[in-house]
Amino acid sequence: MHEKIKVGVLGATGAVGQKFVRLLENHPWFELTEVAASDRSAGKTYGEAARWLQSSPLPERTRHLTVKPCRPELDCRIAFSGLDASVAGEVESDFAAAGYAVFSNSRNHRLDDDVPLVIPELNADHLALIDRQKKNRGAGFIVTNANCSTMFLAMALGPLHQAFGVEKVFVATMQAISGAGYPGVASLDILGNVIPYISGEEEKIEIETRKILGALAGERVQLADFVISAQTNRVPVEDGHTECVSVKLRQPTSVEAIKERLRNFRGLPQELKLPSAPPQPILIMEENDRPQPKRDVERANGMAAIVGRIRPCPILDYRFVILGHNTIRGAAGASILNAELLVAQGKI
Amino acid sequence: MHEKIKVGVLGATGAVGQKFVRLLENHPWFELTEVAASDRSAGKTYGEAARWLQSSPLPERTRHLTVKPCRPELDCRIAFSGLDASVAGEVESDFAAAGYAVFSNSRNHRLDDDVPLVIPELNADHLALIDRQKKNRGAGFIVTNANCSTMFLAMALGPLHQAFGVEKVFVATMQAISGAGYPGVASLDILGNVIPYISGEEEKIEIETRKILGALAGERVQLADFVISAQTNRVPVEDGHTECVSVKLRQPTSVEAIKERLRNFRGLPQELKLPSAPPQPILIMEENDRPQPKRDVERANGMAAIVGRIRPCPILDYRFVILGHNTIRGAAGASILNAELLVAQGKI
Amino acid sequence: MHEKIKVGVLGATGAVGQKFVRLLENHPWFELTEVAASDRSAGKTYGEAARWLQSSPLPERTRHLTVKPCRPELDCRIAFSGLDASVAGEVESDFAAAGYAVFSNSRNHRLDDDVPLVIPELNADHLALIDRQKKNRGAGFIVTNANCSTMFLAMALGPLHQAFGVEKVFVATMQAISGAGYPGVASLDILGNVIPYISGEEEKIEIETRKILGALAGERVQLADFVISAQTNRVPVEDGHTECVSVKLRQPTSVEAIKERLRNFRGLPQELKLPSAPPQPILIMEENDRPQPKRDVERANGMAAIVGRIRPCPILDYRFVILGHNTIRGAAGASILNAELLVAQGKI
Amino acid sequence: MHEKIKVGVLGATGAVGQKFVRLLENHPWFELTEVAASDRSAGKTYGEAARWLQSSPLPERTRHLTVKPCRPELDCRIAFSGLDASVAGEVESDFAAAGYAVFSNSRNHRLDDDVPLVIPELNADHLALIDRQKKNRGAGFIVTNANCSTMFLAMALGPLHQAFGVEKVFVATMQAISGAGYPGVASLDILGNVIPYISGEEEKIEIETRKILGALAGERVQLADFVISAQTNRVPVEDGHTECVSVKLRQPTSVEAIKERLRNFRGLPQELKLPSAPPQPILIMEENDRPQPKRDVERANGMAAIVGRIRPCPILDYRFVILGHNTIRGAAGASILNAELLVAQGKI
Repeated sequence: MHEKIKVGVLGATGAVGQKFVRLLENHPWFELTEVAASDRSAGKTYGEAARWLQSSPLPERTRHLTVKPCRPELDCRIAFSGLDASVAGEVESDFAAAGYAVFSNSRNHRLDDDVPLVIPELNADHLALIDRQKKNRGAGFIVTNANCSTMFLAMALGPLHQAFGVEKVFVATMQAISGAGYPGVASLDILGNVIPYISGEEEKIEIETRKILGALAGERVQLADFVISAQTNRVPVEDGHTECVSVKLRQPTSVEAIKERLRNFRGLPQELKLPSAPPQPILIMEENDRPQPKRDVERANGMAAIVGRIRPCPILDYRFVILGHNTIRGAAGASILNAELLVAQGKI
Repeated sequence: MHEKIKVGVLGATGAVGQKFVRLLENHPWFELTEVAASDRSAGKTYGEAARWLQSSPLPERTRHLTVKPCRPELDCRIAFSGLDASVAGEVESDFAAAGYAVFSNSRNHRLDDDVPLVIPELNADHLALIDRQKKNRGAGFIVTNANCSTMFLAMALGPLHQAFGVEKVFVATMQAISGAGYPGVASLDILGNVIPYISGEEEKIEIETRKILGALAGERVQLADFVISAQTNRVPVEDGHTECVSVKLRQPTSVEAIKERLRNFRGLPQELKLPSAPPQPILIMEENDRPQPKRDVERANGMAAIVGRIRPCPILDYRFVILGHNTIRGAAGASILNAELLVAQGKI
Repeated sequence: MHEKIKVGVLGATGAVGQKFVRLLENHPWFELTEVAASDRSAGKTYGEAARWLQSSPLPERTRHLTVKPCRPELDCRIAFSGLDASVAGEVESDFAAAGYAVFSNSRNHRLDDDVPLVIPELNADHLALIDRQKKNRGAGFIVTNANCSTMFLAMALGPLHQAFGVEKVFVATMQAISGAGYPGVASLDILGNVIPYISGEEEKIEIETRKILGALAGERVQLADFVISAQTNRVPVEDGHTECVSVKLRQPTSVEAIKERLRNFRGLPQELKLPSAPPQPILIMEENDRPQPKRDVERANGMAAIVGRIRPCPILDYRFVILGHNTIRGAAGASILNAELLVAQGKI
Repeated sequence: MHEKIKVGVLGATGAVGQKFVRLLENHPWFELTEVAASDRSAGKTYGEAARWLQSSPLPERTRHLTVKPCRPELDCRIAFSGLDASVAGEVESDFAAAGYAVFSNSRNHRLDDDVPLVIPELNADHLALIDRQKKNRGAGFIVTNANCSTMFLAMALGPLHQAFGVEKVFVATMQAISGAGYPGVASLDILGNVIPYISGEEEKIEIETRKILGALAGERVQLADFVISAQTNRVPVEDGHTECVSVKLRQPTSVEAIKERLRNFRGLPQELKLPSAPPQPILIMEENDRPQPKRDVERANGMAAIVGRIRPCPILDYRFVILGHNTIRGAAGASILNAELLVAQGKI
């Protein structure tokens, strides 16, 4: 790749937008040339407009970029969207219509028939929907990634579904506060507390997972034929969603075979050595009290799903614990990996 | 009742022991006359030996009691045990053999064939095992209460099992640090973290619930005929275990019927107006983000199970969230309620 | 008192407003008849408009009150103000002009020459400013109470200033999140963190303390003749401001004499046995690691200042630690105590 | 340097010991060949004996090292001591007598007349005491580094003392839980709490700072001629001690001159480009709410002192906030930097 591809971030001042900015710093293929946000921020420098919350310093070049409004007049080929759902739907459509390749972390278009919802290790074939989109929507297209808690469940279930067939899934989540953006969860609500409810989250897990693991059937995706029951909770953890899962499989297997399958699983991003791809998408931990968000969330640069405590379930077949970094692989990192795949495939 | 019954606390300096001391202050029927602990503490005053951690001040009378060793030579009729499992088994047996009525919060004897594991709203009839015990063990007896996370699951399932028949139960818990005693969980382990494992806890939930809801069959309890899959987690919450539950019932019912059943459920402690009995053993919350440990754990003085988010489950029949105060109804308060019942029945 | 005095709360749906509502429930002298808030809330019932965050349930009667706009057309004699500083100045002036007795927790009028800033144990004589106010402002008047961290510093310094003369004061605070209202501090900002800055807080401590402990001189208060250096920090604690203080006194004394002075200090509220008055305004703790917010903040119903670790200072004379409940004595409880005093004095 | 110097860690399984292990991984000059701990651990592999708590994985080579007892029979030239104070005194003396170069993080020998207490940017000349030590103690010697909260105060005061003369210092600390080792602070004690006391800490700050900034006078150090008043607190923060400081200087200066002085300060480690030396020992932050432990503690790999909010003090001259990484520059990293200096100077 001789010249870097120009990319922009929509909603660049928000929590997900900032994560995009951080992950795009020094990206080997992409150059961040545009940051766009609400009209309130437009015209300021990014350094003025963004209340920078990342632990690494704000990249100097980005600090001096002028924030633009979220209109499809940006000087870039790819638009990464960290927009709030209240505005993402329309803005992303506008960018797609105007010819941009939009990689969105927002929920708005995930379930649209012509929009792929992609984890590139699992369902890169769904990207074929882009052709249909171009017919419908104009010169550009939208590719979405999963909700932050769906992501890790789908990553862990995918290889099992391929090998053994998933039939039923229980999942109870304990989700980090960073999943709610900034300012997000009030400290008075969560310090020393558990909130046993996250608006819309259970529905997302129950449906998005089935689209991701579904089969492409003509011009749409047929939802995978299993059922999920999700219960979601917010806990006082900064980064890292933990999920307790029980799963019923269609074919008999063993704890050891499941470990083998997950540990050895590789996908297109690994094959193509995409810059953001974790060498091993699913890490297995053997200690009985792991994974833990505080201690394990940074493994594989936050791009893997970490699975532990794989053991039999007295009702379904197996149960285990999943951990993933909700703002990296569960958000901005996922969009970037999707974009890398399309670049590697020559589609951008 | 003209004269108060003398009671002692075994393991009085520990976390559960302190909770016994606090709950027994000003008890209308019981007078705390003895505090017993390890040989290291014996001989000191309780004020010297105990690092008092309760939010209310150490009762003055108790402060000046001399700590005795845990030998069956105490001047009391009832012995409440907050002993560590490493010593509880033998000490409690010794006290029972010596004629004391032992009410234990320890796990050691819970599954003994001749020892009742009692939630008085649900299985007071199991107390009939006391007669068999007296034959085996001597003049006294042991009555146990459930593990702190089992307690609230069993309280919520009991009325449903009686009315509709429980068949399968999933439960994922988020348990408070006070459940691990003092010093218990290191702050470096749990601040901003989730630990997806509590030693022995899942096994306790899976078996104790079935004993409590089992039927007395001759001289032992037949385990209830359902199966539980438990996943347990420690979270940075001070008091209050939260549990996400899915349940399959043998008879069809409705969300409304379940709420009715739980809300209207009453047992012997309510009928007899025992001093520690909550007026309503199971509280129903209708707000979609409740119950929460920080905001709700003190309801009903910590003696009720609080149930919220009752709704259908796409795999089993219904799912809901349970909260309970792990060191009150989940520990010391449960033992005291058991003792009150036996006093009210004239068995002490 | 044969009939209760009708009172209203301005800003009733906010954090301080809710605390007023809770503390006024079952008040022996006051009856809450009016709840007023922003136009957005006006017209709704209080139960609909307020996101109730107190640990005790929302009083049933108040739940059904209709929220009024903050205009001086309320059916009450006293208006307690928990208004945000952005609107409090004008609204409180309007209420005073219209004849209401306004007791404000907002900063806006605290430093006005004709407005008393009162801690009734210390400077009840400043209430004489009310007469001047009535000349200036109309039929009613405004009485203010101190900022939440100033309150406990002033309470502890007051008796020392009277007895020994305060000359210099260092104070470093560690302040609870509830001091910032709701939603207030974002959990991403404070979980596992310290924020070494609270906007405007150091200035408030440095000046308000001197007004409270100043002398009434004709128609205004002469600031007390000492200097304070304050450093303020936000810490992940729910309720209770902790303050590390060093003080230089004008007259020599001893640790024991300071303890005596603070422990035995009483003021008008104690003499008059006002309903909200703590029996002892300043509690002394002798344990070397107390007071602690989590364990001690509820003492004396949150209405006392708690002082511990009194010991010599190698630079100034003495140093100690103060703790107080920032939303009770540090906010709503202080306003109510001020109102009780004026009622007891027949001025309302 | 052609061959790496063999080093060992005493107390290698503890919290500080683990930090030594982590920081020594891939060290360019040192090779970790020995891990020593209590007799209980001796004989096991390090992987078995240590409950690894660092966020980075346990280095594979070290995992397989056999833990030795803490006796001066180790195959290494340098012994880094993370021993508990209850045993450090004697063990370190034994190692020095046997010819080892001991770099200790323990408090035991810090105030010994012949033992240097060194921050190499500030008082490298104190290392001359080593010669006296060798006369007294045998072939080896002991070099100590400051207590974790003293370290950052001394780092910030040192350049000011050199330039302007320090006369009086107030400091109130808010210290992280990792400063207490593992298991250290119980979660029940600190979650949502402040503990206004750390045993022995105030005394250490008040005396150690004066030794570090004192002048070498013949065969001992004359304490610097200023006075410190310290108040120390534990807060629920994982890593990073925050300190609020007020200082009186002997010569007049300005906020800008102080910033200049601190920002431009460099010492021997920077001059010699020691491997662990931060390029700039003192970082200045200009944002009014920084530094914050969660957001800033990792700057400069935890080896710098970070200073913010420099502003005038109404009582003394200036006040500011200091932050430092208590387990890196405040503990293991400090010992390693000391060792690097002696190696660079050819003394090891």
